[in-house]
Parts: sequence; C-alpha cells; structure tokens
Amino acid sequence: MPRKLDAGAPGFEKDFDTFLNSKREMEEDVDQAVAAILKDVRERGDEAVVEYTNRFDRVSFTTDDILLPKARIAEEAAKCDPATVAALQVAAKRIASYHERMLPESFEYTDEIGVRLGSRWSAVGAAGLYVPGGTAAYPSSVLMNALPAKVAGVKRLVMVVPTPDGVINPLVMAAAQLVGVDEVYRIGGAQAVGALAYGTQSITQVDKIVGPGNAFVAAAKRRVFGTVGIDMIAGPSEILVVADAENDPDWIAVDLLSQAEHDTSAQSILITDDAGFADAVEAAVIRRLETLPRKDIAAASWAQHGAVILVPSLDHAVPLVDRVAPEHLELAVADPDTLAGKISNAGAIFLGRYTPEAIGDYIAGPNHVLPTSRSARFSSGLGVLDFMKRTSLVACDAASLAEIGGSAVALAEAEGLQAHARSIDIRLNRAS
Amino acid sequence: MPRKLDAGAPGFEKDFDTFLNSKREMEEDVDQAVAAILKDVRERGDEAVVEYTNRFDRVSFTTDDILLPKARIAEEAAKCDPATVAALQVAAKRIASYHERMLPESFEYTDEIGVRLGSRWSAVGAAGLYVPGGTAAYPSSVLMNALPAKVAGVKRLVMVVPTPDGVINPLVMAAAQLVGVDEVYRIGGAQAVGALAYGTQSITQVDKIVGPGNAFVAAAKRRVFGTVGIDMIAGPSEILVVADAENDPDWIAVDLLSQAEHDTSAQSILITDDAGFADAVEAAVIRRLETLPRKDIAAASWAQHGAVILVPSLDHAVPLVDRVAPEHLELAVADPDTLAGKISNAGAIFLGRYTPEAIGDYIAGPNHVLPTSRSARFSSGLGVLDFMKRTSLVACDAASLAEIGGSAVALAEAEGLQAHARSIDIRLNRAS
Repeated sequence: MPRKLDAGAPGFEKDFDTFLNSKREMEEDVDQAVAAILKDVRERGDEAVVEYTNRFDRVSFTTDDILLPKARIAEEAAKCDPATVAALQVAAKRIASYHERMLPESFEYTDEIGVRLGSRWSAVGAAGLYVPGGTAAYPSSVLMNALPAKVAGVKRLVMVVPTPDGVINPLVMAAAQLVGVDEVYRIGGAQAVGALAYGTQSITQVDKIVGPGNAFVAAAKRRVFGTVGIDMIAGPSEILVVADAENDPDWIAVDLLSQAEHDTSAQSILITDDAGFADAVEAAVIRRLETLPRKDIAAASWAQHGAVILVPSLDHAVPLVDRVAPEHLELAVADPDTLAGKISNAGAIFLGRYTPEAIGDYIAGPNHVLPTSRSARFSSGLGVLDFMKRTSLVACDAASLAEIGGSAVALAEAEGLQAHARSIDIRLNRAS
Repeated sequence: MPRKLDAGAPGFEKDFDTFLNSKREMEEDVDQAVAAILKDVRERGDEAVVEYTNRFDRVSFTTDDILLPKARIAEEAAKCDPATVAALQVAAKRIASYHERMLPESFEYTDEIGVRLGSRWSAVGAAGLYVPGGTAAYPSSVLMNALPAKVAGVKRLVMVVPTPDGVINPLVMAAAQLVGVDEVYRIGGAQAVGALAYGTQSITQVDKIVGPGNAFVAAAKRRVFGTVGIDMIAGPSEILVVADAENDPDWIAVDLLSQAEHDTSAQSILITDDAGFADAVEAAVIRRLETLPRKDIAAASWAQHGAVILVPSLDHAVPLVDRVAPEHLELAVADPDTLAGKISNAGAIFLGRYTPEAIGDYIAGPNHVLPTSRSARFSSGLGVLDFMKRTSLVACDAASLAEIGGSAVALAEAEGLQAHARSIDIRLNRAS
C-alpha cells in the first residue's frame, strides 16, 4: 500500500517531512573494494584491467581483445530489428536538435574604461561514457549521454561497456555507431572507470566520465572525481504526477507504474485535489500491475515508496512539489503552463494530459539523465554544458590598469598580500 | 631552486610528465572527525553547533549569540578604512557587471510536428557562503562568492564565518553588508557546513554551499554533497606565465611571486622561449623575495613547486599549457590574443604585458574562484550558473504524441519496459 497523506489533515507537515526524508537507496559498502581496484589499475594499467574483466565478466580476454573494432560494432549493429534502429534514429535526431539550442554563447567586450573582458566556452577534449552491461544496457542511455558531448564539440568520445560472458548487446552497438563513438572498449565496473580516469597503455585518459552504473561504478566515479570530471551520481528514479479529476485514472495509473517498474527503489507520487479520483487511480494501479511483466518490481516500489497526497486545491501542490523537487513532474491538469510557472524545483516537467513521462525517456528531445533525490533544488539534467568549460579573459593596457589598479592595490594590501599589490604597482611606475 | 625543464632536450617528455603528476596537496586525514561532527549536528542541531564553536573558536556562545544582528554588522563595517571600503565598492560593481552577462537564456519553441519544448533556468532557493576566519578571511572572496548568487537571483544568501577568540573581521562584515547577505552566523568548520546542509532549530537548510575553507571544511563539503550542492573543492593556487624576452624580468618575477606568496603549496611556472630571459627572471625572483613580508612562504613555494620551462618557440608552449590546464594563465607576449586562441584549458587568461594576474583577483570583473590542479580540463570558474538550475519542458497534444509515440513505444519495448510503452499506447488508443 502506498503512503496516504492529506494536506488538509492535522499532522500533515510532520508526516510530509518524514516522507521527504525517508531513504530509498540501499547503500552497498563497496568503497574499499573499489579503492583497491582503482589503485591496481593505476599501477598496472592494461594488465589489471584485463584481469578484473576476465574475473568479473567470466571471459578470457587478452589486452588485444578489449577494443571493439569498428567492423565488429557494425556487424553487431546489423543484427538489430530495423524498426528499432529507425526509432533510435528518430530519437537521435530529436535529441541532437534540442541540445543544439543549449549551446552557450561566449562573449567579449570592452568596458567604459578600456578593459577588455571575455568569457569563452570550449568543449572538453575527451569524454568517457559508461554503459552498463546485461539487462541494464539501455540504448536510449547511449544516445542521452553521447549526444550532448557530440553537440558540445567533444573531439574524442570513448565508450566502455562490459560484456558479461562475452555477450554483446547489438542495440547498444547500433546506438554507439549512430552517435559516432570513437572508441568502444568491452570493459566495465570500477576497472573501466579507472582506465578512463588514469589512462592505461592502450586507453588514453579522458577528461570527463558520464553515464549510469551499479554501486561499484558509482563509488569509482566518486573516487576519481577531481582527476577527471564526472556527471551526477544518480539515485533511484522518481515521478510526481499532479492530476485533477478530469483525467482517466487508468492513464495516470500507468504513468505512475512506468517509474515503479524501473526498480524497487523507484518512487511514484500522485498529488490530486479529488479524493475519489485518488481512489480510482489506486484501484487502477492494482489492476494494471497484473498485466506487467515487471509486476514484482513495480508492486514493491509502489507499496514501499509510492504515495498519494490529497490537497485542498491544485495550488496547494506547488510548495509540496518544490520540496520534493522531483526528477520527473507530470502536470495532468487543465492549465499546465500556469501551474508550471509557479514551480521552481523539477528536473523535467511534462505538460498536459497527452505528455506521459515516457515520451521524455526516449524521444521528446530533452535529456533523460535528470537530478534525483531532491537534487533538482540545486542541479540540472545532463546537457551540453556538462561537456564544456569556460575560460575568462582579461586584458588591460597601461591606461586602464592605471584606472583600476589603485583599488586592487588597496584590497591586496588590506589582505596582506604584498606581491599581489607590487605586481600592479610596478606596472604603474609607483613605489616598487 | 625551481625545477628547470627544456622542451628541446632529450627526456623532456618524461620529465614534464613527472612534473605534471607531482602532488602539491597535503592530505590531512580529517574525514573521520568530520563525519562525527556532521552526524552530531544532524542529530542535535544548534546545541551541537554551539558546543563545537565554543570548543574550536575558544568562545562561550549560547544559541542566541550565533546570528550576528544587522546593527552589529554595520557597527563592525564602520570600523573599516573608508578607502578600502571604496575599493570594495569599485570591485563589487565591476564583478556584478561582468557576471550579469553570464545570465543564461531560457527558451521555448514548438517543433515541426507540434511538440512544445523548452528549457527554463531558475535560481536556487538559498545559498550558503563559507568564509574562513582568522588571516584567511578575505573580503574579496566574499564578493566573488556572493555576487554570482545575487546576480543569479538567489533569494536567501546565508554567510557563516568563524570568529576565533570572538574576533570579528570588519572588512568581511563590510563586504557582507555591501553584497546584501541576508543572514550572518559566526560559526565555522565542519559544524557550520553541517548546519547549512541539514538545517538546525535556528538555521534553515540551504540548497547550495560555496566558499573556501580548510581541510575540515573541504571534507565536510564532500560529505554533504548530494544533500546540498557544493562548488568545487579548490586545491592550492597556480599561475603559469608565458613570457617572451621583451618583458621586464622584474615584472614577471613579481607575478610569479604573487601566487607563491599564497601558500607553500602554491605553484608558479614560467614558460619562455629565451634562456637569457629565464635566467634574468630567476635572478629577479631571488631579489624580490627579500622585499616580501611573506618571503618564507613564497620562497618555499618557488623552491618546491616552481618551474621554468624553456621552449624553442612560443607556439611550443600551447600543448604544454593545455596539459597543465592552469588556474591562471598570463600571456605576456606581443600578440596575446592569437596565442590565447590556440589554448583550450585554462581557468582565466590574462592578456598582454599590462594585465598582472592580481588585477583579476580583485577588480577586473571575472571570478577569482577558478579550477585548480588540472581541473580546467573539465571545469570552470565560479559563476552565475553555479547558483541556477535548469528544468526541461515538454508538451505534446494528441496529434504530436501520435507522430512520435510509435518510436518511443518501439524503444521502450526493446528495453523491456512495458509500462513505459503502455503509458504512450493508452493515449493513442492502441492495445492497452
């Protein structure tokens, strides 16, 4: 049974707080194991990477087997259902098109006293994309992680993907080929993250590592952060649906289940202003669950983490949504734009009755890598900026330095940094 | 003696690599102590914060003493030298003006099949600014950390600053007043970071924590990351100066020392195409050192981490600069713009002979919080974007959903996520 909360009931504030702070993630203690693997990869390079790969993926590779040749990638990709590949192509085109609008603008100007100032964006040199193996190998994730890098202008895009028991996922290869990955290595886990971060004899170090992974991968990314950049460490997926009574309860039930089926730790929340509608959705969830292949996962998620929150009016949903700061927010209401305008914290907002969240997972255009666990309060979905960095530019001439130099000297001296002050003085021919 | 490298000499590649990978940071093992403090603050709130503050700062506060009243801030600020306050005002105006140009643009459009798509930037709700106490309390850092938040539109800006032995730094108060900090708490260390991240009875939780601090503060920020956003964890400061023989060796020497005086772990590097000039700068550094109050610090930094690299021509400096990815890059050459155009990795570039790095520390306009330790390969200086987050928007109607829904269903089914597929199907009146 999902949690039931009524914003009009006494004690709601306390219950909502408890709900907000309930943990969904299982913390696996893998950090020590990961530290040892990373150290080993750093010291022994390829040799260590191959040993761990052979052990964890039950294969018997040599160093030469790690890089997947382009021909092999093409061969695997050719095994895919053409209709699915066509769908991938539609998705790739739409995702690229949306992300192109996110390219930031560099600027340069000369201010009123003659100081030239600028801000220049440039792409990171090389990006590494982690793709999980086995059942969690999602071709849509390849598109969502690789395309922003491509749009940003990253010159070298490297993919690592484990192939447990030697099995290659053809759709992942099709996606890699489609987006133009430059190198694909059939390795995974902490050893793959280490290889990308430190470099080995055969794999050149990258500057940034992105992509989802299990607890080992997440711990490895945390540890190599600083040596390379990383994307966020994603928690379990979430959806919050705000729906009025005019919706078909069945539609909303399926939307809630589309998150719940990801993972038993996933979370689906319904906020509605109609108690009867809430009951109807709950009943529909029970019926729909029976039809799902991933019924057990979805049922566990709904029972353990699901919630139905009744509010006196839809406007009362706004502060609750901001506090949850959901990864995905569906506004299945008559005037979704007005409601969306009042909300600050959400990774992505799906507007209206004909925009199920799943359309954003695959094909709408915006990224599906989004902030989880309330982090939409301070962070954003993956985008082009994650593969770029900014350099500031300053140019003074003798006259403009003379104009502002005195203030800088005053501050440097107030902070007790004499060489700072002298580096300006000396150019102004003052006491040096 | 600084390290001497000659890019034309055999073995340079190996020596440069060793130089790049030499560690400058002392890693203090404070993580366990910090974990205990954070846990305590989380559980006991104000009571714990006050206890740690009294112990570490040698004061005897009660909970009521922590918040500095506006009147007290004004009183302290009034003690400052008016000339220094005027310099702070000049700096604040220039920093705000530069940062206003960094405000990102939201967008919304309807694509060719009728899907409405958007990207909306908004400010984080509340930001916490850590300001170190004692000698490291730099008013310039208050401006550089607070103004991007203000420009971003952050509604609530909270400052924490320890006051060891009860001593308040008037210039820090003047800076806080100038930028319009909303709340100032006289607490520091891991306990202050914990209070901002988790909230206490008297301090409301923030969404993002920025600002420099010692090893305890850095460890605490790493640990609370996820609960709140944090800025980068800054390493020791660096400057790389590319200079030709037309410079006054004395000017370049002082520039190198202006980083070296920060910290014994700071690093100053000169790259030049003239061996005689290199020698002249080295000699000037020795002479200039004698004149500095912070001579011992600067001398240790230069001897342990300094480097002079000789290149056959200035163009040979480009790949070396990109590999160092310096926090500060000074191009004291005849045509700095052309050289800057070839460089990808640098936090900030100072162009020409009249732009000493120190002008950027205080007054030029760009931020002085910049990526260190080679992280300019993948990250940027502090800016307005650090206090904003992006929400993506998608709106389909029945017709546009019908247009792209089929591809999404194909991908959802290929990934084995049936509820995802059904959430689209059901709206298309297909098999549901």
